[in-house]
Amino acid sequence: MWWQSDVQPVSVTAIREATERQQQLTKPLGALGRLEDLAIQLAGFQNKTQPTLKHLVIVVFAGDHGVVAEGVSVFPQAVTVEMIRNFIHCGAAISVLARQHEAEFSVVNMGTAQPLSTDMGAAIDINLAPGTQNFCEEAAMSETLLHAALDAGREQAPEQADLFIAGEMGIGNTSSATAIACALLDMPAKKVVGRGTGLNDADLGRKTRVIERALSLHSNHFNDPLAVLRCFGGFEIVAMVGAYIACAQRGIPSLVDGFISTSAALVACRLNPNVRQWLLFSHRSAERGHRLLLDALDAKPLLDLDMRLGEGSGAAVAYPLLQQACWLHEQMATFAEAGVSDGE
Amino acid sequence: MWWQSDVQPVSVTAIREATERQQQLTKPLGALGRLEDLAIQLAGFQNKTQPTLKHLVIVVFAGDHGVVAEGVSVFPQAVTVEMIRNFIHCGAAISVLARQHEAEFSVVNMGTAQPLSTDMGAAIDINLAPGTQNFCEEAAMSETLLHAALDAGREQAPEQADLFIAGEMGIGNTSSATAIACALLDMPAKKVVGRGTGLNDADLGRKTRVIERALSLHSNHFNDPLAVLRCFGGFEIVAMVGAYIACAQRGIPSLVDGFISTSAALVACRLNPNVRQWLLFSHRSAERGHRLLLDALDAKPLLDLDMRLGEGSGAAVAYPLLQQACWLHEQMATFAEAGVSDGE
Repeated sequence: MWWQSDVQPVSVTAIREATERQQQLTKPLGALGRLEDLAIQLAGFQNKTQPTLKHLVIVVFAGDHGVVAEGVSVFPQAVTVEMIRNFIHCGAAISVLARQHEAEFSVVNMGTAQPLSTDMGAAIDINLAPGTQNFCEEAAMSETLLHAALDAGREQAPEQADLFIAGEMGIGNTSSATAIACALLDMPAKKVVGRGTGLNDADLGRKTRVIERALSLHSNHFNDPLAVLRCFGGFEIVAMVGAYIACAQRGIPSLVDGFISTSAALVACRLNPNVRQWLLFSHRSAERGHRLLLDALDAKPLLDLDMRLGEGSGAAVAYPLLQQACWLHEQMATFAEAGVSDGE
Repeated sequence: MWWQSDVQPVSVTAIREATERQQQLTKPLGALGRLEDLAIQLAGFQNKTQPTLKHLVIVVFAGDHGVVAEGVSVFPQAVTVEMIRNFIHCGAAISVLARQHEAEFSVVNMGTAQPLSTDMGAAIDINLAPGTQNFCEEAAMSETLLHAALDAGREQAPEQADLFIAGEMGIGNTSSATAIACALLDMPAKKVVGRGTGLNDADLGRKTRVIERALSLHSNHFNDPLAVLRCFGGFEIVAMVGAYIACAQRGIPSLVDGFISTSAALVACRLNPNVRQWLLFSHRSAERGHRLLLDALDAKPLLDLDMRLGEGSGAAVAYPLLQQACWLHEQMATFAEAGVSDGE
């Protein structure tokens, strides 16, 4: 299957040359900390000693979840489609950030319970089904829909970009991501489950029991990441898996957002381990399970600002750190250029 | 003295109105985490429900330190003046970031061992003395010079700005900041001292003993923050103290950089405690003592990227987080505007 094909190699030469350049810039060695590492990583991605970030692509995938029938969210399911309208009409957090960062921005409806209304023509309406099935009762989707959603993720991922951010929207999707995390990390629901968009203690207990039921129903699939994705995935999560893999195959780095996105990133890396080297991690979400997913991916995110919005918003907020890493790497003078004595 | 005069009040009304606005924006309550707090704080500073960040002022204060005679830095003292040239010729990290952020940028020579050369006309050459005295042998500066440096900080601070960043440069100034921190926090040198621009273990031991000697020489002044500043301060640190206080008195928030800047911020708050409410903290430096200073100021910085460059660079790197907080606060749709169901 296409998702198992090789990813692009990163350039070892560009990494070496960028590392040498960092050592010559007018600052104590290592004084720019992780910004130095970012510039060097981006050099490897772009096969250029001095990488640039101009073309940012942000795609938000939306989808509905059958499991909301179990009462796992404080928001009604209608909000998924309402937020699609908000995305394309520039009222949502990710829309504001995409505009400010001059990103190429698109919104993809992977499958919502309500149809899109006529004022949502700017959204890409793939709409595989009116949401997934309730994964407490059966697999969230058929194999056909799983493949269709992976393919759609690949198709909607950019052919060319300096950086890709996948965002997501889907009432109930922290439950989906939690079940995926539990299955792949072999952890009980109560260690991973979090408050999502704002559950109280009673709701949190219900959500935990819902996920426990689902885990026990599908427990014979846990050593197969594709089956885990089919059992628990939302269409938007599956599309993100496809998009992350396709980007790595095209040599485009992805800046991963929060809990939901990282659950997709983990599946992508389980399906194709070399995808990992094309992933950068933007922030640690306030959603509890995110830390576990990040640890499993050996990922140290750039920001920790108690964000928990999804949509790709945390990744968009971290984007200026990458830009600044590039500007510093490219525009700072070397010791020789500036006539500054180095510390030798 | 002027530094004890009242600071501007922050607007309680604007804070309340901005908090109400945050609650109406199309996102789960609190989902933007610390970006929500930043927007609300900036509203209070600007007395506007929807604050904007347009006018960023960055001033880098430079000065030399007599204590470098004790061998506390890997870089020669000439680097202070060489870096002044690099600042004004746009080769330094802070210069690159200032240009990219379209900041009003100036460089102030508070007093260097070498004179500025003719190609450094763009620097403001206050030059109180050819560096401070060696604080292992006597106070770093006289009372007259202390007052002159505080006044210069006030004069070079902006009269108007949406945000102020003070940067610093001065070979040896982590020793100065360490001594100030030890004196004001009543801590031994060995708990606070760090590697500065890159000391090895042997050098670090020497630096520790140098600071211990200085602390024991001046120990009868530790309950007087102004005397602590006179004993240990670099001219650039004193100027930052003056600038932070003057900004608070003018109603301009400061975004504090790393270890050196935070030592100045602590002195400023000891001299005039209400200055604290006008300070935002940008990052946690890799320099060890920084955490202690931040704790003493009850400050939770925005970034933790292992930076340790100074110059104001960490604050400049954090600036886009404040910008994004404002954009989101201003441009996101409310639930009512977007026709999105809220979670009630």
